[in-house]
Amino acid sequence: MHLETSPLVPVLRTDSGSSKVLLRPRTSQEVAHILRYCHERNLAVSPQGGNTGMVGGSTPVFDEIIVSTALMNQIVSFHNVSGVLVCQAGCVLEELSRYVEERGFVVPLDLGAKGSCHIGGNVATNAGGLRFLRYGSLRGTVLGLEVVLADGTILNCLTSLRKDNTGYDLKQLFIGSEGTLGVITAVSILCPPKPSAVNVAFLGCPGFAEVLQTFCTCRGMLGEILSAFEFMDAECMKLVGLHLHLACPVQESPFYVLIETSGSGAGHDAEKLSGFLEQVLGSGLVTDGTLATDQRRIKMLWALRERITEALSRDGYVYKYDLSLPLDRLYDLVSDLRARLGLHAKHVVGYGHLGDGNLHLNVTAEAFSPSLLGTLEPYVYEWTARQRGSVSAEHGLGFKKKDVLGYSKPPEALQLMQQLKALLDPKGILNPYKTLPTRT
Amino acid sequence: MHLETSPLVPVLRTDSGSSKVLLRPRTSQEVAHILRYCHERNLAVSPQGGNTGMVGGSTPVFDEIIVSTALMNQIVSFHNVSGVLVCQAGCVLEELSRYVEERGFVVPLDLGAKGSCHIGGNVATNAGGLRFLRYGSLRGTVLGLEVVLADGTILNCLTSLRKDNTGYDLKQLFIGSEGTLGVITAVSILCPPKPSAVNVAFLGCPGFAEVLQTFCTCRGMLGEILSAFEFMDAECMKLVGLHLHLACPVQESPFYVLIETSGSGAGHDAEKLSGFLEQVLGSGLVTDGTLATDQRRIKMLWALRERITEALSRDGYVYKYDLSLPLDRLYDLVSDLRARLGLHAKHVVGYGHLGDGNLHLNVTAEAFSPSLLGTLEPYVYEWTARQRGSVSAEHGLGFKKKDVLGYSKPPEALQLMQQLKALLDPKGILNPYKTLPTRT
Ligand SMILES: Cc1cc2nc3c(=O)[nH]c(=O)nc-3n(C[C@H](O)[C@H](O)[C@H](O)COP(=O)(O)OP(=O)(O)OC[C@H]3O[C@@H](n4cnc5c(N)ncnc54)[C@H](O)[C@@H]3O)c2cc1C
Ligand SMILES: Cc1cc2nc3c(=O)[nH]c(=O)nc-3n(C[C@H](O)[C@H](O)[C@H](O)COP(=O)(O)OP(=O)(O)OC[C@H]3O[C@@H](n4cnc5c(N)ncnc54)[C@H](O)[C@@H]3O)c2cc1C
Repeated sequence: MHLETSPLVPVLRTDSGSSKVLLRPRTSQEVAHILRYCHERNLAVSPQGGNTGMVGGSTPVFDEIIVSTALMNQIVSFHNVSGVLVCQAGCVLEELSRYVEERGFVVPLDLGAKGSCHIGGNVATNAGGLRFLRYGSLRGTVLGLEVVLADGTILNCLTSLRKDNTGYDLKQLFIGSEGTLGVITAVSILCPPKPSAVNVAFLGCPGFAEVLQTFCTCRGMLGEILSAFEFMDAECMKLVGLHLHLACPVQESPFYVLIETSGSGAGHDAEKLSGFLEQVLGSGLVTDGTLATDQRRIKMLWALRERITEALSRDGYVYKYDLSLPLDRLYDLVSDLRARLGLHAKHVVGYGHLGDGNLHLNVTAEAFSPSLLGTLEPYVYEWTARQRGSVSAEHGLGFKKKDVLGYSKPPEALQLMQQLKALLDPKGILNPYKTLPTRT
Repeated sequence: MHLETSPLVPVLRTDSGSSKVLLRPRTSQEVAHILRYCHERNLAVSPQGGNTGMVGGSTPVFDEIIVSTALMNQIVSFHNVSGVLVCQAGCVLEELSRYVEERGFVVPLDLGAKGSCHIGGNVATNAGGLRFLRYGSLRGTVLGLEVVLADGTILNCLTSLRKDNTGYDLKQLFIGSEGTLGVITAVSILCPPKPSAVNVAFLGCPGFAEVLQTFCTCRGMLGEILSAFEFMDAECMKLVGLHLHLACPVQESPFYVLIETSGSGAGHDAEKLSGFLEQVLGSGLVTDGTLATDQRRIKMLWALRERITEALSRDGYVYKYDLSLPLDRLYDLVSDLRARLGLHAKHVVGYGHLGDGNLHLNVTAEAFSPSLLGTLEPYVYEWTARQRGSVSAEHGLGFKKKDVLGYSKPPEALQLMQQLKALLDPKGILNPYKTLPTRT
């Protein structure tokens, strides 16, 4: 449904790994052999999916052996009544998406990197993305996992059951653990029925307060058919225009909002949506808007939002922050930073999954500069911590953010995380130097 | 929205605890003191919420000290834009429900025991219930927990953020762990907006195949407004009539289905529902049906389904099974058992959350009999294991089912569970003899 993005190398410009060995197993058994071998010999391993992660989690820091899921791309089964898909971890998200859509279902997860990222990588990072608002977290939609543990043991929790309360839910340990507790080799995921009607509205708002009020109005009036509520500021639009030559489809505004509805009755949905648009245009919450109902126009509107990452990476060096914040303070940080940085930054932009309280804050500059970094950090993290926000809403910690965990989690939590790591990976061979803070 | 049930003592007839001490702390600090004290002295503890659990998890086996959340019933905060509710673990589900409904939201969880069960107990058992089909698992809707660990450490993961990928998601360890890994003292949960239109249809189906086809039709035609799909067989209806004097609202049929819709547009929903009813009545999938749109009638119809547990307990001794099974084989087990037991059982009934593949299979007899038990077990578990089902879909394992875990989980999973238990509760003071199998 959304546009493919171009190669993402620039995003990862700061992390060039130096591994001499890249292994591409085809089966869980092969992964088990590799880990058993590495475990015996104390060799460190970096699991790698599509390598689209934002925090340097899948690239080796020193000489870790890369275990890539690139060849583990088989669909195991799909049940066309229940919508349960079982597949190997290396299946590319977009391919899974196509596969289940042909059968009347959708993958409950969608993101700009879909053309490259693997479902195993998505699960390992607990990816959020564009459908989170509607279908919720992978913690609810992933039904089962097969995981190879550090010592090569295959842990089969690959159930396809919607409900299973027999003991502790072990798969949760591996969702979002970024390859530090085990290698995910297969995934069972519940796909919801494909909505028969999809609409996208792209709106211009005069201020952030109006963006928030538009969100509240929208949730009330569109209710259960609302499937995405994304926002971007005028700076984002400028960059998307400048670097990708995408035209703004509405009057220039300080803020833009993309609303998607997905429902089972085209007529009903259109009626709800037009009632909503009348309301927000009439009350001045929205100054201009456009509506798309056909695939091509829908893709075009989504591209504006999805290709921001790409536009940013063409603008220069990018400092990236992915934060959860209380809605009413969400944009204040962007304004604060803009004032704080003045001419030291090229652009300070804010966009993201507003419906989930998730801000992507990005700062571009001609080149990396330690002094700019010093102005940004720990300022951004301290600001976020004061709002009791999260310093990593969906991207995880990986290598780049592992030392900021303490801004969002208390010491008792950190200690328990370290105990879990020691339990599951006593030799520390799984993705070392990632996720957990450097011990001091 | 649903009817209250009467006291549930008969359900727990087989487990009468023998504790001499019952503590009712008011704060997390008090819970921490209790656990610190018990931990130092190797005293075992049984956490207890509303005591409505089905598997004897909250009653002491020997001399465990009961730590009840009965007095921890304060609401901490409610945010009326985001719908995030933060409260102490001892809040009664129905009271929370009333509180948030007055503010335009609903708790994403509802079950027959709502008048007595505590939110902490719900989280500790990872309860499923009647809204699971619509709002999904507590693993997605619970945003944060505060937990007191075995040694009295307070673990504060009580975030209110929709998304937070800073490290391992520790709260997941405690969801569904039935008080064996920590005592939940506070819960943060995301409440969805209250749907403005609710309808309930109660239908009679000529056979189980028709029940399944009705489900598929319904999912296709009602889509995102479908909020519950429950079924019960003719035996259930008989018992509800016999013991509770509730009248069947439609023509007598082999099976009954209760469908609830919840949406934001009354007119649209009614239209979708009547289109669906026309379709299923016209095609013979449904032989008779009734529709309720007002609160009183809706409650009346829900009572038929929700009070089955109560009717069963008045029928005699009840053997209870709570299974996840593939939809197409779900009812075969009930038929098989009926044939197998013949006159040895009073009644063999099947009902449950069909939309989630969850069968409640219950057998009643005049009194407990080891020979009847021997005919039922391990037959039921083996049957379920052959279908790769779950021997406990939503009720958990507690004391009664802990030794059947192996029918649904491989030895590697069991071992990791035991390691987690040893890590979090090295002295084994938290709800001993529960959830994990007796070591042999
Ligand atoms: C344009 C763009 C848009 C994006 N949009 C979003 C978004 O909306 N929401 C979001 O959450 N993220 C987003 N991301 C980030 C990224 O795409 C996701 O984190 C994605 O889930 C990573 O998948 P991957 O296969 O590329 O994993 P990789 O980058 O290869 O790996 C990510 C981490 O997971 C580990 N890992 C990978 N595979 C496995 C495995 N099989 N077993 C164990 N560990 C493994 C790696 O070691 C690493 O720590 C975006 C990225 C880009 C470039
Ligand atoms: C009529 C009826 C209908 C039901 N319907 C459903 C249904 O639809 N779906 C469903 O899933 N269940 C259902 N149940 C089962 C039961 O209601 C649920 O399991 C409920 O969530 C238990 O809550 P409680 O507060 O009564 O917990 P309790 O019974 O007191 O305890 C249950 C378990 O949780 C532990 N526990 C309780 N509180 C805490 C805490 N604060 N911290 C740590 N551990 C704790 C206990 O030690 C015990 O192991 C039903 C029960 C009845 C009687």
